[in-house]
Amino acid sequence: MFRINENYLKLPGSYLFSTIAKKVAAYTEANPEKEIIRLGIGDVTLPLAPAVIKRLHSAVEEMAEQSTFKGYAPDLGYEFLRSTIAKEDYEKRGCKISADEIFISDGAKSDSGNIAEIFAEDTRIAVTDPVYPVYVDSNAMAGRSGIYDPATEKWSGVIYMPCTKEYGFVPELPKEVPDVIYLCFPNNPTGTTLTKEQLQVWVDYARKEGAVIIYDAAYEAYISSPGVPHSIYECEGAYECAIEIRSFSKNAGFTGTRLGFTVIPKELKCGDVMLHSLWARRHGTKFNGAPYIIQAAGEAVYSPEGRKETGEQIAYYMDNAKVIREGLVEAGYEVFGGVDAPYIWLKTPDQMKSWDFFDYLLEELNIVGTPGAGFGPSGEGYFRLTAFGSAENTKKAMERIKAAK
Amino acid sequence: MFRINENYLKLPGSYLFSTIAKKVAAYTEANPEKEIIRLGIGDVTLPLAPAVIKRLHSAVEEMAEQSTFKGYAPDLGYEFLRSTIAKEDYEKRGCKISADEIFISDGAKSDSGNIAEIFAEDTRIAVTDPVYPVYVDSNAMAGRSGIYDPATEKWSGVIYMPCTKEYGFVPELPKEVPDVIYLCFPNNPTGTTLTKEQLQVWVDYARKEGAVIIYDAAYEAYISSPGVPHSIYECEGAYECAIEIRSFSKNAGFTGTRLGFTVIPKELKCGDVMLHSLWARRHGTKFNGAPYIIQAAGEAVYSPEGRKETGEQIAYYMDNAKVIREGLVEAGYEVFGGVDAPYIWLKTPDQMKSWDFFDYLLEELNIVGTPGAGFGPSGEGYFRLTAFGSAENTKKAMERIKAAK
Repeated sequence: MFRINENYLKLPGSYLFSTIAKKVAAYTEANPEKEIIRLGIGDVTLPLAPAVIKRLHSAVEEMAEQSTFKGYAPDLGYEFLRSTIAKEDYEKRGCKISADEIFISDGAKSDSGNIAEIFAEDTRIAVTDPVYPVYVDSNAMAGRSGIYDPATEKWSGVIYMPCTKEYGFVPELPKEVPDVIYLCFPNNPTGTTLTKEQLQVWVDYARKEGAVIIYDAAYEAYISSPGVPHSIYECEGAYECAIEIRSFSKNAGFTGTRLGFTVIPKELKCGDVMLHSLWARRHGTKFNGAPYIIQAAGEAVYSPEGRKETGEQIAYYMDNAKVIREGLVEAGYEVFGGVDAPYIWLKTPDQMKSWDFFDYLLEELNIVGTPGAGFGPSGEGYFRLTAFGSAENTKKAMERIKAAK
Repeated sequence: MFRINENYLKLPGSYLFSTIAKKVAAYTEANPEKEIIRLGIGDVTLPLAPAVIKRLHSAVEEMAEQSTFKGYAPDLGYEFLRSTIAKEDYEKRGCKISADEIFISDGAKSDSGNIAEIFAEDTRIAVTDPVYPVYVDSNAMAGRSGIYDPATEKWSGVIYMPCTKEYGFVPELPKEVPDVIYLCFPNNPTGTTLTKEQLQVWVDYARKEGAVIIYDAAYEAYISSPGVPHSIYECEGAYECAIEIRSFSKNAGFTGTRLGFTVIPKELKCGDVMLHSLWARRHGTKFNGAPYIIQAAGEAVYSPEGRKETGEQIAYYMDNAKVIREGLVEAGYEVFGGVDAPYIWLKTPDQMKSWDFFDYLLEELNIVGTPGAGFGPSGEGYFRLTAFGSAENTKKAMERIKAAK
């Protein structure tokens, strides 16, 4: 008789955002006249940039003609996209990443969920707390997170690195040495960043201890402050210890279009074995490439028009972030993030629990956000708002919050 | 110090098709004047159907407008596509599969590579021999295939079910009871099929023994013979024991466009646990949906125009299959498949080894095919040709083979 992967059964309840969706649906059904403003999920709302649309159309036309039709893509992605990324995202920042160290995928979520596969079964992982749930859940599914304790909301086998206000939401080096460290900066959910010097500490630590850093840089396009690294490869020695994951979702609005990539330098080795070879094997065996038309559209993001237009989208969202930050400050909230990231992390007033604050915002002000506790125990007492709404709704939401102060 | 997943190191050399590509490249470089005809890889060559192109364009337009823009897709796929599939692929064949038992993905290769994750670590798998390499390799990567023996070309932990000429390439029930059985019909590589009665034997066996059948039906659109099931759910009791994987690659030319789906009936359980819930959790954690524009294009495949146009493509490829079959028979070869599948499986002449026949075809006749041995030990002495070339090239290749007889 077949048996299932019982690790799946250890996963706690439903996914954070489905719980939120259910609560909002219930409220809306009971109060159909209320106008709800959604600043919860990190999903973009602006349409794709004209340069991207133009290239999507022309790529579709290529698929309509025998002479330009494309069948199976190269396993690891089209050379035109990989070399553009190598040049634009890395060479221009002084990072030595070659096109064949870049693996094109259908998005950062797939890559960050699958990457753990190439490590040993008893790998000890370390994550920040709060954290994007995929890193922990994907390892839990592989049976390497131990047991989940609902009381502490922690897995026995995971090393948690609390990010607290006292340290500017910068994690401290863990006391126990991990094998793999997940870092996401600009951070989801806190919206805070690390300086290059702060990130260098982690790179040095990983090299010294023989750990691998999985660096999720999905939000790098939102960085405007000098001194904040866009890539971990800006740090010395990172080629030997870091994997970087990037996305087109937030820099070009591809959440529903799906494109991302993972960088594994060939210098990153375990003994003689390049992690690059293992990931190439995984790609070749369990993936068949991102669609040609989407890869072509991804290249258009880097064209002069694409750069300009997606830059304007980011500026639009960052205007929202500013409105949220300033509105919250005016209303007396303590606020973090939102300068180099599309997320604003606020301290709930009067030590309110995150989920209580969620209910308050939903029921009293008809605003949907995300409770910090949903991202981990250290998120308790905090709340995330996103800058991805429309400018109009964002302003309206802040008027409501200010009026309620 | 971190360690890698050492199971990856047990995988034998390079992937079949990269070996072939290298051999062809070397020959072409040495003989630039020769005109090579490629009937090796199972990749389509006709451009996308006009109805699909039209819907791709209109979906791209939707992504260009704020009011119709689509962000993150529903985890398991858009309802419009899931309900169309439920109706067109299942209800019309008398199968009771509901829309929410269908999981939209980026293709059958991803699904067939990832599905093993939801089963216990010590799951015993059974595969036909010859077989599509992904089933075995993905399980080997998870450490459940044992040790690979280069002499026998078999994994110690895998149950092999030889498909031989004597039994019409129909596998026999295994002597040792497996937990999970991979079946692909119409078959890749042999191009042969099972009748509904033959498939019912497997469903009955799986139910009796408590095994799960993973049924890869990627080539079902090529079936024309009566009595050959298009879905395993045409068999009685399959809802309780079978997962079905489907693709848009071969029925609509989506190899470079990427779309597929997996069906897991809610009746398929291990104790109280629905496999459906586990796969939903995996999708929600490690995948973020297929692109909206591709899902929209997938729906267009089922429109009256889409049906007609993709039907014509299949007829075109099956005309090639007929040309290959008849040409080979005329040249004195023993030939199988190619009636309900785009693959033709031929016995090499004079007990030639498959790779020797590969070299002969490449060097003497400038035709590329795939050596049967590449699909498993029982493929030795056989050779696969595909019907996916152009009609002109396919005819030319057969002229060369007939002239050489």
